Amino acid sequence: MNVQKQLRQGAYRSAGFIGRYQRLVSDTVIPYQYEVLCDRAEGAEKSHVVQNFINAGKAVRGEDTGDGFYGMVFQDSDAAKWIEAAAYSLANFPDDKLEKRVDDLIDIITAAQDEDGYLDTYFTIKDKDKRWTNLLEAHELYCAGHMIEAACAYYESTGKSSLLDVMKKNVAHIYKVFIEDGHGGFPGHPEIELALMKMYRLTGDEKCLALAERFINTRGTDPDFYRRECEARGWQVWGNDPGNGEYQQSNIPLRKAKDARGHAVRAVYLYTGMAELAAETGDSELLDACKRLWDSITKRQMYITGGIGSTVHGEAFSVDHDLPPDTAYAETCASIGLMFFASAMLKNEVKAEYADVMEQAFYNTVLAGMQLDGKRFFYVNPLEVIPGISGVAATHKHDLTQRPGWYACACCPPNAARLISSFGKYAYGENDDTVFCHLYAAGSVGFENGMELVCETDHPYGFTINYTVTGNGKIAVRIPHRSEKYTLTVNGEAFDGKPQDGYVYIPVSGKAQITLVLDGTPRFVYASPKVPRLTGFAAVCRGPLVYCFEGADNGGDVLSLKLDTQGEIREQDAPDTLGGTVKLLVPAVRTAQTDGLYTSQRPEETPCTAYAVPYYAWGNRGENQMRVWIPILQ
Amino acid sequence: MNVQKQLRQGAYRSAGFIGRYQRLVSDTVIPYQYEVLCDRAEGAEKSHVVQNFINAGKAVRGEDTGDGFYGMVFQDSDAAKWIEAAAYSLANFPDDKLEKRVDDLIDIITAAQDEDGYLDTYFTIKDKDKRWTNLLEAHELYCAGHMIEAACAYYESTGKSSLLDVMKKNVAHIYKVFIEDGHGGFPGHPEIELALMKMYRLTGDEKCLALAERFINTRGTDPDFYRRECEARGWQVWGNDPGNGEYQQSNIPLRKAKDARGHAVRAVYLYTGMAELAAETGDSELLDACKRLWDSITKRQMYITGGIGSTVHGEAFSVDHDLPPDTAYAETCASIGLMFFASAMLKNEVKAEYADVMEQAFYNTVLAGMQLDGKRFFYVNPLEVIPGISGVAATHKHDLTQRPGWYACACCPPNAARLISSFGKYAYGENDDTVFCHLYAAGSVGFENGMELVCETDHPYGFTINYTVTGNGKIAVRIPHRSEKYTLTVNGEAFDGKPQDGYVYIPVSGKAQITLVLDGTPRFVYASPKVPRLTGFAAVCRGPLVYCFEGADNGGDVLSLKLDTQGEIREQDAPDTLGGTVKLLVPAVRTAQTDGLYTSQRPEETPCTAYAVPYYAWGNRGENQMRVWIPILQ
Repeated sequence: MNVQKQLRQGAYRSAGFIGRYQRLVSDTVIPYQYEVLCDRAEGAEKSHVVQNFINAGKAVRGEDTGDGFYGMVFQDSDAAKWIEAAAYSLANFPDDKLEKRVDDLIDIITAAQDEDGYLDTYFTIKDKDKRWTNLLEAHELYCAGHMIEAACAYYESTGKSSLLDVMKKNVAHIYKVFIEDGHGGFPGHPEIELALMKMYRLTGDEKCLALAERFINTRGTDPDFYRRECEARGWQVWGNDPGNGEYQQSNIPLRKAKDARGHAVRAVYLYTGMAELAAETGDSELLDACKRLWDSITKRQMYITGGIGSTVHGEAFSVDHDLPPDTAYAETCASIGLMFFASAMLKNEVKAEYADVMEQAFYNTVLAGMQLDGKRFFYVNPLEVIPGISGVAATHKHDLTQRPGWYACACCPPNAARLISSFGKYAYGENDDTVFCHLYAAGSVGFENGMELVCETDHPYGFTINYTVTGNGKIAVRIPHRSEKYTLTVNGEAFDGKPQDGYVYIPVSGKAQITLVLDGTPRFVYASPKVPRLTGFAAVCRGPLVYCFEGADNGGDVLSLKLDTQGEIREQDAPDTLGGTVKLLVPAVRTAQTDGLYTSQRPEETPCTAYAVPYYAWGNRGENQMRVWIPILQ
Repeated sequence: MNVQKQLRQGAYRSAGFIGRYQRLVSDTVIPYQYEVLCDRAEGAEKSHVVQNFINAGKAVRGEDTGDGFYGMVFQDSDAAKWIEAAAYSLANFPDDKLEKRVDDLIDIITAAQDEDGYLDTYFTIKDKDKRWTNLLEAHELYCAGHMIEAACAYYESTGKSSLLDVMKKNVAHIYKVFIEDGHGGFPGHPEIELALMKMYRLTGDEKCLALAERFINTRGTDPDFYRRECEARGWQVWGNDPGNGEYQQSNIPLRKAKDARGHAVRAVYLYTGMAELAAETGDSELLDACKRLWDSITKRQMYITGGIGSTVHGEAFSVDHDLPPDTAYAETCASIGLMFFASAMLKNEVKAEYADVMEQAFYNTVLAGMQLDGKRFFYVNPLEVIPGISGVAATHKHDLTQRPGWYACACCPPNAARLISSFGKYAYGENDDTVFCHLYAAGSVGFENGMELVCETDHPYGFTINYTVTGNGKIAVRIPHRSEKYTLTVNGEAFDGKPQDGYVYIPVSGKAQITLVLDGTPRFVYASPKVPRLTGFAAVCRGPLVYCFEGADNGGDVLSLKLDTQGEIREQDAPDTLGGTVKLLVPAVRTAQTDGLYTSQRPEETPCTAYAVPYYAWGNRGENQMRVWIPILQ
């Protein structure tokens, strides 16, 4: 039923902006993260991830488990996400040393699998008898899901089935527990649903499909499950409230859901699984629910940066239109999950709105999650930071002014690494006779349908995209909503095909040279007056990039700026700033400081130029003020 | 050392705006609160306050304590605050039935006092042996402080010493514990310091002064005290963190304090005690600390409404310039405490800035705390309420859209009652040869120095204040900072005396007719650009009243309004609205709704008139949007 599918890993050879990021991940992020997993990275919090697997192997063999288990209950998933990222990276940049590291780690993981297929170091080390008794908190299915994704990625990149074999055995075990033996539970932290769908596509194993359906169809139909589970076992990991069905998306049958609520990462992982299942089975009721949830997120609860989950309380969606810039949570992982969801929706229907959001999330929140040097990471991505308040006030403690290094709860850094390394999967898609260009990603692509494509562009900084396509079929080129004006030429001639749902379909016979020129004029963006926190403010964007105003470019003070939206925004090449960027110069006024807190004399306003830089690069020049939304002068 | 002192209760006979409020408190609030204390008020949460005293009396007599203790550990203070309010009210409006009720309650309280003078129903009923072992949480000194205030008030109003005798015995007991027996502790919730100073002034009992000095001088010099106390006893009431010295103002010796931090009510009660002590002893080091703390609050941490303590986390001060309108805590009691602090500072130095803040807090936050009918109350006083977000979003749960009835933790309602009933104490002061008019309060006043005064004014709605003064001496008339322009005539002639620290001193010989005309032109007010949440916004004020924009007057939608601050604000008498008010008509535009969340097309703006009503009266017409700060058009 899939109207199109993602590119296979390795089919995209990156260049340009994306290429540089993939190289950074390969050269810096993945090696560093490996050191962290092995507890050899200086300054990083203790991880113990590899040691947990080694110790679990001892437990399986009946040996003493040494220093036992350490870390979060979901610590295993760090290894999985690292393998997945490394696998993608190996397809991009073959590297024997890295491949050897992955193989060695897979050996360690293999040894940690119990005879019956169970694989989870926390319970294997601590207490085998407690397996599958705390789905609410214990993340067994979450860790399994990530390891399934890693296994699929490693197989796809290298053809090696070592980890895939482990996970087939693991899936068979889970199938026995949940389908044959009738365990009525479903994952506290959804993830495995989308992983099972990935494995189903790769292997055709019907157990995967059956389990994904089971978890999705059960969820929310028995809102009391976690409470009974909690009572029956009599112990907890963190004291999660089993009655908080909104937090874990278990209060409403998924097919009835209208509003995206609860823990944002869990939500978008779950919705991705739903959309993948709908694409596979043609389940229109499920797809309708996905569309409602998509609208709930993107039309009522999403930051301009593609950040979602606005509140720190439960790392969750808040309510509609509650989008505070300064106390935002907007976890990096949630925006990555939103890209997964968008990409899964594109398998159901090819509409530019999905790719638009994917692009918005990627170029802003996802990239902002990582320091330009690839060494430090944000979980939380505020749209405003004021030193003295951010990170200090009780309500702003989570909004840091600077990226810290590796966290104990290390979900975001490896998540960003695997996303960037597999960017081609999100940028391009295909079906039997068409190739789909969802995102403008420089490089070359070979499709399974036999077509080939070379994309030349400086996107997101340049707005000309040249596609050289060979083969026979069609190429679907996306026209983003943000670019009302565009020109499209095919072999030098204007092409007048109208976009269908935001994609122009161009027939290709043999070879075609396609040039898309988008409107890259910098623009002011206004929020709906339904968003209380954004009334009277504007943001500045250029192409897919949301800009922000930092103290570093504005004399240390962005709070006193007001933008003149009647004026023209100018561009300034800044090849030596923030890894090479284009600054925006915005006509503005600076408000004079006042003596006390309040005055009935309107403070004097002096015309000035306000300087903006891309949001993804904020916080790379030391602690300073940062604002995406600025009050407007008129 | 006091440069002037508060008026004695009963010396002010109210009229006008204040008179109506005092009448409302007398006729509605005090009787209703009595029913609550006796558990006879429909719809109110169970109080058990009177029953706790009855049961404690049984414990003292060695009888069975029946249903024992119920409620908060500081439940006794509700009785104290009610007696204090009733006492003030009796001086304003003699009422035999009410006086009988107070006497009966005092009898019950007297019976609950232990032979050694100890008085606290929680420990008397539950466990005598635990007395004085949990100063951090158990509020024994806090309850004693409130009962001391009640005793002073009842003596001042009626001349009856019944409760004062009880509290003298109680103070002697506390003196024995803390001074003679050397208990090293100090109150977890400051309050008794200011109460002891009140009792010292009334009775001259040196034990009061010694205790107040002891508590103030000890505090913060032993930051580890609460931790040791907690360890030693091994039990807790709520699990307050004994290490959180900022919360309970015990981390820094008070004389060194620079920033107002921690629980806001505790802070201002404590600072009031400090200022009272400084006024009494001439301790300039202590006064300097008070001035720093005053500036910290009023110049960096105060809402335009006189609300303080901006964060729900610990009901506390946040950091400088963190003044969110929508997630404000701004507890009613904190603004009442700020009035106490201001009034105490006026005993040290007569400066209009203290009275300005007192007025700002009273006419806005304190009055907003009470429904116009006197039957429902706000603890939390946000400056913005948006139904659907306020009271619902996790970060906004405390910001209710409507005043609830009586709370289990009933601090604010009786606190407002006692403040309003004793308004004369804050409005007027005196010393040997001068009467001080701090606030414009219609009515008549007889001073101890022999002078008399009649004040006629419609303030806060009218801006002409007529004083008829008789006697020989001076009258000090305050010129508020908000009124740069004013005229002052004495016996029909312009008076050209320059204000000293915001007060004009006018000699009176026999009789004088003084007319002060303030500038009541409605005005836009702007915040310092250091306050991130208020950049690009303006508020509207008239005299001391801060105005707000409610949905009820603005077609249900205030979020889409932007004010034209170049235009003129018009006034509209509205005698039938909100108990009689003046509406303000502000030139504005209404921003069109947009389809999605963000648009690069600037939404159309249609000129309109925005209607504002006084903030103190908001939320009296059902749930609707409310905003004090509105984006400005230009």
